[in-house]
Amino acid sequence: MTSCTPHGHDHDAIEDEIPENAIRLACLCGSEASLQAGDEVRWLESFTDLTFPPVPFPSRRVHDIAGADLLRALVRRHHVRLWETKVGMLFPDEARHFMMAVEKTADFVVEACGGPDLFTPANGPMRMRHRHFHVAIDEQAREIWLRELLASFDEVGFPQEVREEYWNWMEPFSIRMITRRTTKDQPRRHPYAGAKVSLEQATARREA
Amino acid sequence: MTSCTPHGHDHDAIEDEIPENAIRLACLCGSEASLQAGDEVRWLESFTDLTFPPVPFPSRRVHDIAGADLLRALVRRHHVRLWETKVGMLFPDEARHFMMAVEKTADFVVEACGGPDLFTPANGPMRMRHRHFHVAIDEQAREIWLRELLASFDEVGFPQEVREEYWNWMEPFSIRMITRRTTKDQPRRHPYAGAKVSLEQATARREA
Repeated sequence: MTSCTPHGHDHDAIEDEIPENAIRLACLCGSEASLQAGDEVRWLESFTDLTFPPVPFPSRRVHDIAGADLLRALVRRHHVRLWETKVGMLFPDEARHFMMAVEKTADFVVEACGGPDLFTPANGPMRMRHRHFHVAIDEQAREIWLRELLASFDEVGFPQEVREEYWNWMEPFSIRMITRRTTKDQPRRHPYAGAKVSLEQATARREA
Repeated sequence: MTSCTPHGHDHDAIEDEIPENAIRLACLCGSEASLQAGDEVRWLESFTDLTFPPVPFPSRRVHDIAGADLLRALVRRHHVRLWETKVGMLFPDEARHFMMAVEKTADFVVEACGGPDLFTPANGPMRMRHRHFHVAIDEQAREIWLRELLASFDEVGFPQEVREEYWNWMEPFSIRMITRRTTKDQPRRHPYAGAKVSLEQATARREA
């Protein structure tokens, strides 16, 4: 009852308020499961949806080595690339508003990496998930976003020695921006070492 | 760090893989929080998003008392009402397809309440969350759905003695159909006793 591996998810049952001695409903994912009612109420267990993994925010080393200009260039290049993908339609349509959104993100990145605090004084606390609630970002959109970030490292010549630290921040942090679920599975993780291949596979499978 | 009550949510920190002795990032919801990087990586704690509460599936008493015809009438009336709300646009546009979806739901309800098994042989296992992934259902849509269900009880003369059991099923079950998140808060609960008022308040607030 606690595992439904043929369907690719665990029930992740958590502490819940099912009465003691209650009849529990057999897993309804399995084909042998019976939906039909019995003499008593039957309880389906609770579970949780998305788990946001811990996020290691970068040290100021990233800014010290890359510099604010290159961090800004990375964010800009990344977004120019996104504009050409289906993630592009999640951004403001008008070029001026699109660029304002990009510069605001660059402010955030520079500050979070140890550069000047351009974001917080102008915009208030981070609250990044909150800031994305108006946009429907699904698991696929996150993977396209990550794929284009990785490609942008090369295009702007981002220093090799801080790429992994930057990636280790953005890879789990991007999960917190998912606002539209299309699967019971937890989002795929993409560790830096194999990210290029794992993201190409994931996004190619979906765009096929 | 574990509570951000001014913003209406707890962090719900769960077991995570933050290294021992790691520096933890202060809550970034609070206005005093500093985003700016230090000498070391700082960890933001993990948390979980949506919690699906346990669901008490009805006993066959519901079908024995209401009967299959009235259960079908309830589902039909409910959906005719939904059609007039903004939840209506989540359903197939064409009348014939809309009615097919409604009849399939009625088959499910009748079977789950102890009537003939019309759903499972034709459609396979329940997997109701899975069946809704193609539709963007947010917290507001759920509350409109519940409000219209409650109104439909009266309109079809659903027997008083099984309304609460039916409601206690659908109220938590509907949380499992949410696929689009627009807040960090857990969905509001609407216990049967106060549901009419609490749903009117919730939906009026949003439609204002």
